[in-house]
Parts: sequence; structure tokens; C-alpha cells
Amino acid sequence: MIRINDNYVKLPESYLFSEIARRVATFRAANPTVDVISLGIGDVTRPLAPSVIDALHRAVDEQAAASTFRGYGPEQGYEFLRRTIIEHDFAPRGVQLSPDEVFISDGAKSDLGNFADILAADNVVALTDPVYPAYVDVNAMGGRAGRLTSEGWSGIIYLPCVAENSFIPQFPASRPDVIYLCYPNNPTGTTLDRRQLKQWVDYALENGSLILFDAAYEAFISRDEAPHSIYEIEGARRVAVEFRSFSKTAGFTGLRCGYTVVPKELKGYATAGEEVEVNKLWNRRQCTKFNGTAYIVQRAAEAIYSPQGRKEIRASVDYYLENARIIRENFLRMGMEVYGGVDAPYIWLRTPQGMGSWEFFDMMLDKYNVVVTPGVGFGPSGEGFVRLTAFGQRERIEEAMKRLVL
Amino acid sequence: MIRINDNYVKLPESYLFSEIARRVATFRAANPTVDVISLGIGDVTRPLAPSVIDALHRAVDEQAAASTFRGYGPEQGYEFLRRTIIEHDFAPRGVQLSPDEVFISDGAKSDLGNFADILAADNVVALTDPVYPAYVDVNAMGGRAGRLTSEGWSGIIYLPCVAENSFIPQFPASRPDVIYLCYPNNPTGTTLDRRQLKQWVDYALENGSLILFDAAYEAFISRDEAPHSIYEIEGARRVAVEFRSFSKTAGFTGLRCGYTVVPKELKGYATAGEEVEVNKLWNRRQCTKFNGTAYIVQRAAEAIYSPQGRKEIRASVDYYLENARIIRENFLRMGMEVYGGVDAPYIWLRTPQGMGSWEFFDMMLDKYNVVVTPGVGFGPSGEGFVRLTAFGQRERIEEAMKRLVL
Repeated sequence: MIRINDNYVKLPESYLFSEIARRVATFRAANPTVDVISLGIGDVTRPLAPSVIDALHRAVDEQAAASTFRGYGPEQGYEFLRRTIIEHDFAPRGVQLSPDEVFISDGAKSDLGNFADILAADNVVALTDPVYPAYVDVNAMGGRAGRLTSEGWSGIIYLPCVAENSFIPQFPASRPDVIYLCYPNNPTGTTLDRRQLKQWVDYALENGSLILFDAAYEAFISRDEAPHSIYEIEGARRVAVEFRSFSKTAGFTGLRCGYTVVPKELKGYATAGEEVEVNKLWNRRQCTKFNGTAYIVQRAAEAIYSPQGRKEIRASVDYYLENARIIRENFLRMGMEVYGGVDAPYIWLRTPQGMGSWEFFDMMLDKYNVVVTPGVGFGPSGEGFVRLTAFGQRERIEEAMKRLVL
Repeated sequence: MIRINDNYVKLPESYLFSEIARRVATFRAANPTVDVISLGIGDVTRPLAPSVIDALHRAVDEQAAASTFRGYGPEQGYEFLRRTIIEHDFAPRGVQLSPDEVFISDGAKSDLGNFADILAADNVVALTDPVYPAYVDVNAMGGRAGRLTSEGWSGIIYLPCVAENSFIPQFPASRPDVIYLCYPNNPTGTTLDRRQLKQWVDYALENGSLILFDAAYEAFISRDEAPHSIYEIEGARRVAVEFRSFSKTAGFTGLRCGYTVVPKELKGYATAGEEVEVNKLWNRRQCTKFNGTAYIVQRAAEAIYSPQGRKEIRASVDYYLENARIIRENFLRMGMEVYGGVDAPYIWLRTPQGMGSWEFFDMMLDKYNVVVTPGVGFGPSGEGFVRLTAFGQRERIEEAMKRLVL
């Protein structure tokens, strides 16, 4: 008998986006001439920046000649990219890193998923609620989630982020080993100020917890109070791993590149008490189960840090932020309760009159032909909210807003 | 305390290639003017084929315009590539697959590493010896290897592949749950004929074992008796997963693309006895911890199946096979015992006069300034052998051969 990982059997079918797709398809079938606009889209819509396109063409040409061809690259990524990242994303914020603390990958989703490989299976995990569903699933697959009950997984500590606590997670009653934080946040679009993030770093330092910090939306930060990297906080290098992505920063969702920072000061412990550098473990994991990111893609990532590249990707981020502003202000003008959309491409909208997330979803689809994402799909504390995204095309977003106001 | 996966602590440092690099560096430092030729290189040296380069440029241009831009693709890969693979790699050999049985990835190393995710931690694993070291490490990381002793890992069943059994693994004394087979084989360069592979498929069917079949070197098969896919064997769809790579087939080591076939007939069992499709588990794993392979890379992979693309990659494979022939025949002429090199880019050479692998390595480096790979680095049964690879440039290989004959 081929024996499988039992934890996979406990995992319910991934439901949120397939259920949205099903309801939209049903609506379209019944209303074939109606123009449906999606404000639920989580993917970018603007093409790659000209600097990125140029870098790709150049790198492709290098691969065409034996003298410049590159085969296997370092599993950790090329030093040219690791150094460029440090120089632009960290050094200007006073964060000193060495290239071997930066691991280039094919995207934050892979790294966030695979990082659990190097952690003990009986670590207790804390997650903010609502949350990006993959964090939960990854830990359920790794046997860290316990049983699935009507209140969620029995083994996971949920940290409710609701309007009443300004979406700031509060310290849990019992100590977690691993804490997932994502700021700017998906789905709420809110972020933590320096002081708030410092409280979590201090908590992790006091409790010997590991913070897995997902900073995929860092490029959207517009307020000075919000830190761009957790390492801007003193002591964070001893407790935190930071995940970054070029997906939303530079439209790399189809190109696949991100990176993960694992500081050498970060220590882990085996059951017997042996102290090990987490950096070495991750390096070993990557060298054994990964063979590096495509050379041409790493050259593309490098290009976004050139003076011209920076201008171009800034313009795209600003375009999406302006979309976010339009959505946010429209709903505010309508007297609705709106969060996020300032330091993030996500807007978190309270449904009116206590409507449920799915009830509001259906109403928006039927009445305005606009698709939103039900907040409850991100966790119990998302009930009564929907997520709107700013990644669409301007004219479509404006059209959607017009429908709502009429 | 941040608690880590204890299995990582048990894993010795990866030693083989770093030790080779160390000895070569020491030699070069002492002999700075000597021209050292490597016959140990595991990476391709020929550039990407013109059809691949053209496809990359075209796909990059698509990413430059909003109307043709592609963001997130399917985690399992684009259907255009999955269908093309089935049409060319399987249908002509009488193997019918549906697109959802083919999963595109960033390379076989990732899939071979990650596949263990969906298997129970207490499965008993059997490996051929010598073997690609990552198979061992992956299972050690997953807690399936037991203790490391002087005879290898206590929990792993080793299947010695030596000259005395013509490098054909024999059935073990006790039943394994999972069997790794790699044919054409790295490092021995030998392969199994249809009848020999059928015996293993039948064994797996009788014993309820899973075969993880690594066919990364399939393109190098030149004899009709050797099956290109394990699914050419009746019943294999119920017991085998096949891993394929474009790395050696089309020089994609730096572009990163491969695929894994998981037939729907393949069933696994949870501890409670529940039967599940392994295909569904792998799909769930990939959707949760992977976000697909770059669109432009998938277009590049598609291009190798065009009439022109096939001609071009065939020419590269033939170039490497001719290298293999030159190496093989030179050593045969010298009266040495040589295996492989006919259906594979690897030549497996018995060291003369019972010399140890490392002793022969040192002799070759000192006397002929030629680098080989000590066979013992692939496992205990590799002692007394070295691996030579055919991926170098023709003139360098000819120069190396000249030195040996003189």
C-alpha cells in the first residue's frame, strides 16, 4: 500500500476562489449580455516595465551563444541580484545584510510554503485572522494544525484582526513558537506602524518565537510610520525571516521571482538542545530541493533597481495606489466603513446593515454586476467584510464605481 | 525557542562536489599555469537552441503589452505545454495521458524533493546504490532515513548496482513502500531494458509499492530495448510517478523547467484506510506551495517540440552522445572496464588495479590534469569507480583523451 501523508486527508477542499468562480459563471450563464466587472482580482494587469523587457531580451541573447550561456546557477541566486537587493531594499533603511542572508526564489508562495520544512512538526503556530489561506494549509499539511472544528483548526492560535482592535493583532493567551505576520496586510489592506511592529518583535524576543514576516506588498507603503522591512526594528534579526516578492512590486506574477531573508543571527534549536543557524538549514533545504531561479528572470529582477527601472515600477505601483484611492473614497463618500487602500492594494469594506460576506457578494453581483471577495473566505474574523483589490484597469474600476453611485 | 526539524541536524554536510572543488583549487594554486580539463561537469555547455531563443523573445514581447500580458498562470502549467508534451513524449509510444496528469514545474529537482511532502513519514524507502545524493537527503529530511551508520542510513534499503549484477537492482529482502529508480541512470550511465523494468513494475504491483521514476536522461536513449517512459510498461500507471526534465534534453539547466506525470489510476492510502488519488494530493501540494513556472519558460519548452526545435535539440543530444562515445571508446581501447555512455551522457569507469575512487581522482588530476567524479561519492557501491560526463566541449574532451593515451 502506498501510504500518504495523513494530514492531506484532513485538509478541506480549497473553497473561496472556486466558489466565487462558480457563482460568477452561474450569473453569466443566466445573464449572457451583462458586463461583469471584477474588483476581486488578485493579479496585476499592467504589463512588464520596459526596463524589465529589455533586460529579458538581453539575457535571452546571452543564452543563445556558448560564450555567454549560463547553465545551473547558484541555488541561492546570483550574487549580482543579491547585492542589488541589499543595496536598494535594505541599506537605505539602515539594514545591513550580507549576500548569503538573501535567497532568491521563484516566488514568495514557494518560500512561505517550503519554509515549514525546516521547522519542527510540533511547533505551535499563530496566525492573524483573517489571513492568506495558504499559511493555514501549509501548516495543516505539516501536521501543525490539529483537528478542523467549526471554530477553525484546534492546534492553531488565531489572532483576530477586527475593526475593534484597529486590525492590530493582540498577544495570545498562550505562547506560540511560530507567528505569521503579513504587513501591509492581505486581505485587510492595513499595516502596522513601527511601534506596533516593535511590540511583536519584542514579544518574539521575550518568548523565543519565530516571526515569519510576509512583506509582499511593501512597495505599496505610502506613510512614513510604516516600516518597509521588519529588520528596521531592533532585534528583529534574531527572531524574524522576511519574505519579499516581485509579483506585485514589478508585475512579476507570471515571471516568478521573490526572495527570502534569513539573518545569520537567527538561531533554532533541535530537541536535544543543539543550537543551529536557521540560515544554514534553509540553505541546505534549498540546495537539496531547489535548483535556483532562471538566470533570465534574475536579470529581469535586477533591472527593476536601475534608475529607469525604479521610475517605471514606481509608476505602476502609483497607478494601482490611485485605483485604491478611487475605490476607497467612493465607498467613504457612500458612508460605508472602509479600511486599507492607503499602504496596500487592498480595500477592506464592512458590509452594510450586518449583511454576511456571501450575502453582500451576491447582492453586488446581482444588482451592480461587480465581483468582490467575501471576507469570511479569509477566516472567521473576515465575516461581515469583503475585500476589494486595486489591480484592475482604471476605466473598469471607474465604471464599477459609477454603477454603485447611481 | 525556535524549534527546528531535528532530521536536518542528522544530515551530514553535502561533501562530494565541495571536496572535488577543494582538491582542484589546491592543485590549481600549486600549478597555476597548468590547463585543467573537467570530465566531471554535470552541466550542459551548449547554448539554447535557436527555436527556444525565438520563442523566448516572442513570449517576452507578449509580456510587454497589456493586451497580451500574462500574470499568474495555472499552478499545474499551461495547457498548451501539457498537451504538447503528451502529444510528443507519450502518445507516439502508446501512452495515453490527460493534461491534468502532467504537472509542469521549475525542474525535476524541485519535484523529486517536494514529492515526499505528500507521502507518510514512516514509509520505507529503497534506493539504488550508487545514487543521485539528493534522493537520500530528501528522505533524511523527511525522517525516513533512520540513523546514519558507517554502512549508510539504517532506515533505507540500498539496492546495490554493481558490475556483478550488470547494474540491475535486485529485489530486496524486505518490502519497501517507495522505490526510487533513475533510468537512464545517473551516475552509472546504464539503463534497464523493457523486460527488466517490467519486473520492477510487477514487483511494485504485487507489493503495493510506489515507484518514483526519474527519467531526466530519457533523451539520450539510443537502443530500442530501453523504454523511454515507465508507462510503456503495463500496469505502471497504478504504481509509478515519472519525473522528466528539460535540463539535459534541451539545455534548460539555467532556464528551469521540467514536468511530473501522476496518473489518476495511482492510489494512496491514509492510515485509516481511506483511498485517495495521488494526483489530487500532488495537485493540492502544488497549488498551496507553488505558483507555476514562468510563462516565457513554458513557451520556450513548447518550442522544443516544433519540427525545427526537435531537429535542434536532437543535434545537441547527438553532440553529447558523440562525446560519450569518444570517452567510452578511448577508455575501452586502453583496456579499461567501462559502462554506460550509450543511452546516457554518463560513463562509469572501473578504476584500474583496485584503486579507490579518490585515489584515482587524485592520480588523474596530478598526472593528466583531468577532473573526474569519484564514484564513492554516490554511495558505497560506487567505490572503485569514477563517473565521467559527456557535457563538455568536444575539443576539450578530445584534448583530455589525448593526454590519457600519451
